[in-house]
This record gives sequence, C-alpha cells and structure tokens, in this order.
Amino acid sequence: MTERKTNTKTNPGNFFEDFAVGQVLEHAAPRTITSGDVALYTGLYGPRFAVQSSDAFAGRLGYPRSPVDDLLVFHVVFGKTVPDISLNAIANLGYAECRFLAPVYPGDTLSAASEVIGLRENSNRTSGVVWVRTTGRNQHGETVLQYVRWVMVRKRDAAAKAPDPVVPKLAERVDPATLGKAVPPLDVSAYDFKLAGAPHRWGDYAVGEKIDHVDAMTLEEAEHQVATRLYQNTAKVHFNLHEQAQGQFKRRLVYGGVVISLARALSFNGLANAFHIAAVNGGRHVAPCFAGDTVYAWSEVLETADLPGRSDLGALRARLVAVKNRSSADFPLRNAKGDYEEGVILDLDLWLLLPR
Amino acid sequence: MTERKTNTKTNPGNFFEDFAVGQVLEHAAPRTITSGDVALYTGLYGPRFAVQSSDAFAGRLGYPRSPVDDLLVFHVVFGKTVPDISLNAIANLGYAECRFLAPVYPGDTLSAASEVIGLRENSNRTSGVVWVRTTGRNQHGETVLQYVRWVMVRKRDAAAKAPDPVVPKLAERVDPATLGKAVPPLDVSAYDFKLAGAPHRWGDYAVGEKIDHVDAMTLEEAEHQVATRLYQNTAKVHFNLHEQAQGQFKRRLVYGGVVISLARALSFNGLANAFHIAAVNGGRHVAPCFAGDTVYAWSEVLETADLPGRSDLGALRARLVAVKNRSSADFPLRNAKGDYEEGVILDLDLWLLLPR
Amino acid sequence: MTERKTNTKTNPGNFFEDFAVGQVLEHAAPRTITSGDVALYTGLYGPRFAVQSSDAFAGRLGYPRSPVDDLLVFHVVFGKTVPDISLNAIANLGYAECRFLAPVYPGDTLSAASEVIGLRENSNRTSGVVWVRTTGRNQHGETVLQYVRWVMVRKRDAAAKAPDPVVPKLAERVDPATLGKAVPPLDVSAYDFKLAGAPHRWGDYAVGEKIDHVDAMTLEEAEHQVATRLYQNTAKVHFNLHEQAQGQFKRRLVYGGVVISLARALSFNGLANAFHIAAVNGGRHVAPCFAGDTVYAWSEVLETADLPGRSDLGALRARLVAVKNRSSADFPLRNAKGDYEEGVILDLDLWLLLPR
Repeated sequence: MTERKTNTKTNPGNFFEDFAVGQVLEHAAPRTITSGDVALYTGLYGPRFAVQSSDAFAGRLGYPRSPVDDLLVFHVVFGKTVPDISLNAIANLGYAECRFLAPVYPGDTLSAASEVIGLRENSNRTSGVVWVRTTGRNQHGETVLQYVRWVMVRKRDAAAKAPDPVVPKLAERVDPATLGKAVPPLDVSAYDFKLAGAPHRWGDYAVGEKIDHVDAMTLEEAEHQVATRLYQNTAKVHFNLHEQAQGQFKRRLVYGGVVISLARALSFNGLANAFHIAAVNGGRHVAPCFAGDTVYAWSEVLETADLPGRSDLGALRARLVAVKNRSSADFPLRNAKGDYEEGVILDLDLWLLLPR
Repeated sequence: MTERKTNTKTNPGNFFEDFAVGQVLEHAAPRTITSGDVALYTGLYGPRFAVQSSDAFAGRLGYPRSPVDDLLVFHVVFGKTVPDISLNAIANLGYAECRFLAPVYPGDTLSAASEVIGLRENSNRTSGVVWVRTTGRNQHGETVLQYVRWVMVRKRDAAAKAPDPVVPKLAERVDPATLGKAVPPLDVSAYDFKLAGAPHRWGDYAVGEKIDHVDAMTLEEAEHQVATRLYQNTAKVHFNLHEQAQGQFKRRLVYGGVVISLARALSFNGLANAFHIAAVNGGRHVAPCFAGDTVYAWSEVLETADLPGRSDLGALRARLVAVKNRSSADFPLRNAKGDYEEGVILDLDLWLLLPR
Repeated sequence: MTERKTNTKTNPGNFFEDFAVGQVLEHAAPRTITSGDVALYTGLYGPRFAVQSSDAFAGRLGYPRSPVDDLLVFHVVFGKTVPDISLNAIANLGYAECRFLAPVYPGDTLSAASEVIGLRENSNRTSGVVWVRTTGRNQHGETVLQYVRWVMVRKRDAAAKAPDPVVPKLAERVDPATLGKAVPPLDVSAYDFKLAGAPHRWGDYAVGEKIDHVDAMTLEEAEHQVATRLYQNTAKVHFNLHEQAQGQFKRRLVYGGVVISLARALSFNGLANAFHIAAVNGGRHVAPCFAGDTVYAWSEVLETADLPGRSDLGALRARLVAVKNRSSADFPLRNAKGDYEEGVILDLDLWLLLPR
C-alpha cells in the first residue's frame, strides 16, 4: 500500500489482498450529527415515530430530548467504512449482530472503526469475501453501534496468494437479553398512545402476525443521492451516471440503506409504537433498486421477548420486507422453489422495542 | 372502528360515516421544529423575508430570534391531520378562518387536534363534505394556529345512513381587529427597509393595486416529495407513482401546500415587507399541479386595515394567485363566464402584516 | 430609478446605466446560517473535510466548533448580490481577489454590500461590463469574505450615454502573506491524519503535481434548484423551465456555484487535508452545466507558500478544473490552439491551506 500512496494521493480503496484477519481500520472522517441532519432525514423518508419526532414527547418519557433515528446513525457509521471496505466491492452480501448500544443526540460526533474478522477467496480467484465488525463511537468514546457486514471485494491481482480462509461464526439472531442499552429507563405511563398514532403495545402483537404497511414511496435520483451524500457515502455506483450508463444496469444504483430507511418509515403504519430498532439480526438486499421504483413494505412478527430487568419495554423480532412496483398486500417473499419472488428487494430481520 | 382495529393494525383512515359533529380528534405525532426544518424550507422555496431570514434582523425589531415561517407551521399542523381527516378524501375543498396566534421558534414542538364542525352527505350518497376546525398548539399548550378546512370524503358504504346536514357558517374574512397576535410589539424604527429588500411600507399599497411577482419556479418530483414528507403528510397521491399511474392523472399530485409556499416565496418580489401572514381568509386549489409545471404568482390588494392598539404594523388583505405554465404578467384569474382561466391553480385570500 | 419604483413594486434589477463607479449597494436580506444549512450543504455535495465535518475534530485543533464550509459562505453572500448586480446579466465573467477573512459558525448572520469599482460599455452599445467588490459581513460587522466579480449587464436603452470606462487593476493572485485570517492558531499536533482521511501534509505536495479526483457526481434539477434557493439566489435561468425552454439552451442552467461546490467536494479524494479555501485568485465558468451532466474534477499544484508568522499551516495554490461527461484522468484543460477542451466547465485558481 505504501508504494501506491507515493504514486497517487487519491484513495484507490482496498482490494481483497489488502485485508488481513485482525487488522483494524480507523475510518475517516468523524461527523457531528445535528438537528439539520435530522430534518433532512425526515424530508427524505417521512418517519413519524413520536419519540424521534418530538422533544416534548421524548422528554416526558425520560429522554433528555429526541434521540437521532437509529438508521441515520447506522448510515453515517456505514458511510465512513465505504472508502476503506467497499470501494472495490462487487456486492454487499449481508449484515449480522447489529446492535444499537447508546442513544445518539444532535450535537454528538460519530466516528467508526472496523476489524477484519473473516476472509475467504472465491473459487474464481478474482475476488473474495471480507467480513468486518464495525464499531461506531461517539465523542466520548462510547460505542453507539456495532455490526458485522460482509462484502465481496475484487482482488487487485487474481494471481495473488490468498490467506487461509477464516469464516466467522455469527449469531443467528442477537440475544434479546442484551437489547435495549440505547434506551434510558422510560416512564411508560407518560407514553401517550393517541399522540403516538396507534394503541398497540408490545403485548398486542402475536408471533406469525403479518402487517401490510399499505403506503408506498416512489424514489427519485435527487432523493437517494442527497441521502447517500448526507451519510458521506462515496460509493460511485450511486452517483455517476456517465460511468453507470456503460455498466450492467445502465443507471445509478440506489444505496441499499435508502431502501432500509424507506421501509422502516413506511412500517409506522402498523408498527407506530415500535419506536426503536434495538438490533438487526440479519439483512439482505435481495435485488437492486433504481430511481422511479415504488417501494412498499410489510412485516411479520417472528418472536417476542422480555428485556431482563425492564418492565417498560418489550422486544419484537420482526421480518421487514420491502418490495418494489407491486403491492405488499399479499406479503410477497419466496416462491414455491424457495427463491425470492419477483419484486422483493429487501429482507431484514430486526429486534424492535415497544412500550409494554 | 373497534372492529376494524382488531383486524389490522394499519390505519385505514376515517370514512364519511366515521365523523360526527362535535367529535374531537387528537392527531399524531407531535413534531419539534428545528433550524434544520427552516433550512430545508429555505432550500425548497427560497423565501427571503428578512424577519424569518435573519436572527439579527428579527432581534433588532423585538423578536427573541427569527420566527419560523408561518407556512411551515401551517403545513406541519396540516400534515398531522391527514391520517385522521383526509386519507380517504376525494378533494380538499377549501380553507377559512385561519389565524396565526403565537410565534413559533426553532425548538418548539407542535401538536394538532381537530373538531368536526360540519357534515353534509353528497347527493350521490357515495361521499360527503366534512368541515373541521384544526388547532395547532406548542409544547406549552398555547394555540399557535387555528383554521377551518373542508374536504370531500368517501363513504365506506354508500348505503350507510348519513347524519342530518350541519353546514357551519364561516366568516367571509377574518376580522382584522383580531390579527397580529403572533407578532410581538415591534420597534419599527429599527426595521431597515434597505436590508429587507424594498422601501414599501403598509401605507404604500393601495386597494386595487395588482402586483406581478415576475419570478417563477419549475417544480420537481423530488422537491415536492421532500417537502411533503418534511411535514409528515402521508397522503398517498403525492408519493406513489405505481398507483397513481393507474389513476386519473397518471402521475403524482403535488401537495397543494407546496404551491402555496412557492407562491408566497415568489411574492417577496413586490411584497418584500409583508413579512407575516396573519390570517388566511379563504383559499382554493383551483387545479392540480404536477412535477414539471412552472409556477408564477401575482397579488391584488383587496383591503387595508389598522390593527387596534398597534402603531407598528398595518394589515393588507391580498389575493394571492398562482398560475402554471403561463406568465402572470396579465393577472390571469377568471374569464368572462366567471370560470377560472386556464392555468390558474391557486386562489388565496390573505391578511398580511407590514411595518407602517 | 425613483421613477420606475413608482410604477411597480417589483425589482426590475439594475441595468448597465444604473451603475456608477464608487456606488455602494447594500444587499437584502441578511441571513442567519444554521446547522440546518450545513446539513443540507452536506446532502447536496457530500463534503468530507474533517474540520468542517466534526465539531470534536475542529475543537481539538483550536476552533470553538466546526466552521461553516467556505463555499457555503461564498454562495450565501453571492446570492444576496444577484437582485442588485446580475438580474439583467448576460454572463458572469470572472472572479478575483477573493479572500476569506474570518471564520463563520452556525448562528452567525451574513449580510453583503458591493461597491462598483469598474464600468466599460461594450462596443455593440447594448451592454457593458460591471466590476464590483463585494464584502460579506457577520452580525458584528466583521468582514468574513471579500471578492471582486465582473459581469456583463444589459443596457436598458442602447442609446443611453455610457460613462468613461474604468477598468480596475486586479491582482493576478492574492498575496499569500495575507492568507489565513479565517483560521485561528491551530494545534497541528492534534490533527489526526488518519481520521482526516489521508496522510498528506502541505509539504507532501509539489508544484506541477496533478491529481485526478476520480469520483464524479451526476447533477439533478432538484439538487441544483434546492442549492440555489438555499443561497436565496434568485437568478431566473436556474428555476424557470417555462421561460428557458424558449431560450438558447432550452433548459435550466445550473448555477455556477453548484459546480464549484461539487468540484471542491470531489477534490477531497487527493486533497483531504486542504481543509480551508483561503482565497480564490481567479475563476471562470468555461461552459454551462445542466441537469443530467456528470461532473468530474482534477487539480494541479501551481505554487506553495509559507504563511508569515504561522508554523501550523502552509498554503498551496491549486488550479481546480471541473469537466463534464468525460473522465478527468487525462487532466483535460486546453487544446493545442489554447482553447478550452470540450467538456471543461470550470477553471478555478485557489489558495488552499493545509497542516504542515
């Protein structure tokens, strides 16, 4: 890497052979989140969860003020990792063990670092899979977010010798006993369900219940570009039509995080009191999304859990599925063969927290 | 309604037969307005009124800081009413008796409630008109905004029995003696007309005077969608191309409030010192607006009025007309038959306050 | 001008014969910059310079908090001048002697005034060139920015007598001994190059070095319109498709400042530690830019300079070139005849400051 740096001052990104298990990458640049970021996030997705929407509502519960939307935190941390981890990525393969560990408020500064925890060359020898555990910290050094992500990354040189494969063992789902650290103890008696938009508490949801979120949003180029830049995510496929026009899709690709945020905002209609994402157990971008696509979403309750020592909140494990250019009223997911149905673009497995 | 709620956790909206005169609906979710919202509002419409643009300018007059643009307050309050009032609306028919009653500053939290004040089934029995009086309050419970709106709402069941018609008597215009409560007493000697952009005081405008605002803005899908989400307004017609493509217009409809804000921002050129909308006497969205349309605006002075006990400000009643895809230089409004001319999209009747 | 003002209350802008050397124009309206503006600026261009991105990073160096991006300051000040200087402009010809003289922080209020320093009628007598020196001040009256700009402005009446030509003598480049006033004394030992995204200090750059910034951005109508309105810049050519469709380009023109900001944000990849633009020695919008164009950028180091009395920072004079719809990897600039190559849209001459 030193050699390349003397040839050029631009960042060529890391290739598969630049990673080693145990390596820690500190990502540039730290980012102060402000109420301006929150406003733009609202304009881009339209979230309505009362805790994040109203300082007064959050304050009555025991927050000092409205916390920043969990996914805004996630995207900002994720964005920092792109120049080091996925500039030469072919595909973003998955997420696991993602936990939100401390609340983030406007004025907090986020920084990110990633540890390489797995490597496996592909059989074609032109690329390999890289697993990283990324940690987002605030200005006090507290961990606010941690997640594992794996990506397929090009090799610079197919002939380069690959390291012995290391494939990390990842939890099938985050242990619910560890959830809730990003939520202070809440006075749920002060939670006004009418103001929050729906009467449903944690106990009102049953395993197996499916909820069509009904509403939908059509995405525009300006919207996903502004969102992705807000996260300082520099992946070229989202921004450069001149280059993309020559590629497989002939157009710019929407950053997958935009679809996650849209689906989450749509999920308010049916999950209005699931105000906090405590964890992402797993997630997959099933198919690409482009400007002009209309995104719908539905959810299925997979599991419920108590939070040890907490009587204020309960956890709901939910699958959040986004589809495009078709209604989600029939809960599209997989066909008889087990393949994702046409139109499914996102399959996310979340732990959500709701008042009890 | 209880029955439907056990079948689904999503909000189907209220139908005509769900409303009763006297009923009060508290709307979700409260919303803290920040300087981020103000910045995005500026980016979406480009307002230049000095009082709202500069804390220093506002401070010299007697404001603690710049107040939030009146229409941003209006749209946020309006947005909250959509899921309860107009999710099943066919048309937004009109506004009346809208008054701004207290200033709103960044950091204030707005909530909204509506009382049903009128109901009348249409002769075709498939829909009816619902009149509501909506009140926007800040975190201290003070009323910052109140207005009447009436909408045509679908019936769930055409056979359902309709209540006896109640049609509220609405004021033709807000009594000017009640205006100005949202403006603290101002030291107009500190109002710098050069910095504000024009020399014209209240007394420089004459009844009958027409002003072409000259400038124009072409609307984009991303702009009206971001604006409408910023207000947490969830009306589907603004967002879902997949569904709208099957409908009457084949495209997404621009939220009428976007047109109001654009026309207001354009009106700076000619009404630069009319820094506050004290009331909306009436308003009508004459025709729909779509992305790609170019909006022009003109105003006519209808009336002038003193504010009892105030020597700082005077009130100007003005008609604000927006047209699309044609110049407003010839003040288009109605043809010889009394119908709105082709291209007219908005006809608004405002009380504006200016320094004397 | 008095006569016109009694005929209409709208601003017709100044024509060539309305300007006189020595005349000072105070521009409307002052503007408070907030963290909301900063967030929207980030969303529009995606800058990543650590000093502006992180309050914590800036604070460790000696700033009270992150300063506002220099170009956001420039565009806001520039925007104020448009109604008085360039509403009737045919072309924005150039910039010179632009210096940033004090840091701007969220909460500061900017106002602008311009002095006419040169006038020369064109030989066709239908227009002339106007030179102005514009000063941007904060709420304390401190100058934060000063620059010279010259524009070609229409005459109202070709027959009108022109004043004797006055062509100001402008510096070929800002004297580096005067740079750096907008940066407090910094503790460079606290500058974390890893967090900032690259190891290159001032001394690592050599005169003649060319850097391709690699990344690129495709511009959308909604993006440049939102940006230009954020600056309260009212030039019609950016907003009115209905009128522009009849003109030379058949479309809206992108405000040149948008291209400057994009090129600057792209330059992070190669100039990550050039966190401050201290001066603009000169600049030219070589060709127009439209929505749908993809902007690339490259830089060339022209000169290096010490800052007298400062051991924390050094100055780098760099040419920043933006091109559209072609890669910048071959550093396109001028052809053998000395004309700008096809695709070059911006040629800017900057003084940048970097840690030593």
